[in-house]
Amino acid sequence: MSPRGRRPAGEDARAQIVEAARTELAAKGYDGTSLRGVARAAGVDPALVHHYFAGKTALFAAAMEVPFDPRQVIDGVLEAPVDRLGESLVRAFLGVWDTPEGRVRIAALLRSAATHPDAMTLLEQFLVREIFGRVAGRAGPRGLERRAGLVATQMIGLGFARYVAELPGVADAEAEELVAAVAPVIQRYLDLPGS
Amino acid sequence: MSPRGRRPAGEDARAQIVEAARTELAAKGYDGTSLRGVARAAGVDPALVHHYFAGKTALFAAAMEVPFDPRQVIDGVLEAPVDRLGESLVRAFLGVWDTPEGRVRIAALLRSAATHPDAMTLLEQFLVREIFGRVAGRAGPRGLERRAGLVATQMIGLGFARYVAELPGVADAEAEELVAAVAPVIQRYLDLPGS
Repeated sequence: MSPRGRRPAGEDARAQIVEAARTELAAKGYDGTSLRGVARAAGVDPALVHHYFAGKTALFAAAMEVPFDPRQVIDGVLEAPVDRLGESLVRAFLGVWDTPEGRVRIAALLRSAATHPDAMTLLEQFLVREIFGRVAGRAGPRGLERRAGLVATQMIGLGFARYVAELPGVADAEAEELVAAVAPVIQRYLDLPGS
Repeated sequence: MSPRGRRPAGEDARAQIVEAARTELAAKGYDGTSLRGVARAAGVDPALVHHYFAGKTALFAAAMEVPFDPRQVIDGVLEAPVDRLGESLVRAFLGVWDTPEGRVRIAALLRSAATHPDAMTLLEQFLVREIFGRVAGRAGPRGLERRAGLVATQMIGLGFARYVAELPGVADAEAEELVAAVAPVIQRYLDLPGS
């Protein structure tokens, strides 16, 4: 294999894996999809999937055309002290989506989830498993589902209002103004006593 | 006109007015639509529109197939003391949508708004003008747009999570559990100092 030939072949293999991931995710949901299963569906060695993608979140992001690995972002969020997780989550959320490319992408994701039940189920499993569940779990184990769900209501609503509805007072706010307003709410939900 | 003939004729006229309202709302948005304009478009006397609909919110509700007049609901919300407006709003919101018919209707409304920019603009104008703007205005005039927008983020997110995504921990919660969790958030946004 010549050095000139390797890159296109590699990109083809990567594209093939991403396409297989889309099919697997649509058929089996987030929880039911594995890197091994995607490798099988793509007809490649599992090692090749691991070569291109750090893990399931990176593969999910590629399949959804999200321009970053959500796991890395949440790893960063979780480095905050437990009493500042709310602030950390809201700032990271606005940090990754408040770009011209990010705005277009999150609006498309939320619109798609709102209208296609399968896309909604997929996004929901992903958000619960990798994002809100992890953040709520960091704050403690009791009443995790309720606390993660409440965090999701506020974050999804913030995403819709800022990026889809472009609501006055929210779409035009500075990111740090929204951090100041919304972070205490997320922190409150994270700190709720379990029921 | 015989008594037997009146009712069908009346229902026809009402349906004609609702149809004209849909067309006017789609073309001119909520703020640009008037009862007089709808009467003109329907080819009926404005008094007939007033005969069937208590006001613009009632006509809007009929056009959107919402089974109650939002203005009456918000009038009730605003009767609460200013420091309990959050509780009053969340309880009323869940009260009107937590029915089998209500669930189907709000899910359809939110889905439609998420995918059709015109439907989103229409819903947004309505929500800002008649719902969140009025509630935030009752709490005070400063920073009204920002406070109303923040209230909208939480309420829209609650609606999506409970009725569209049916998120675990939120969809299955008792209404009063959600009132207890979310009302302080709404109250916090209403009470924010103006910027």
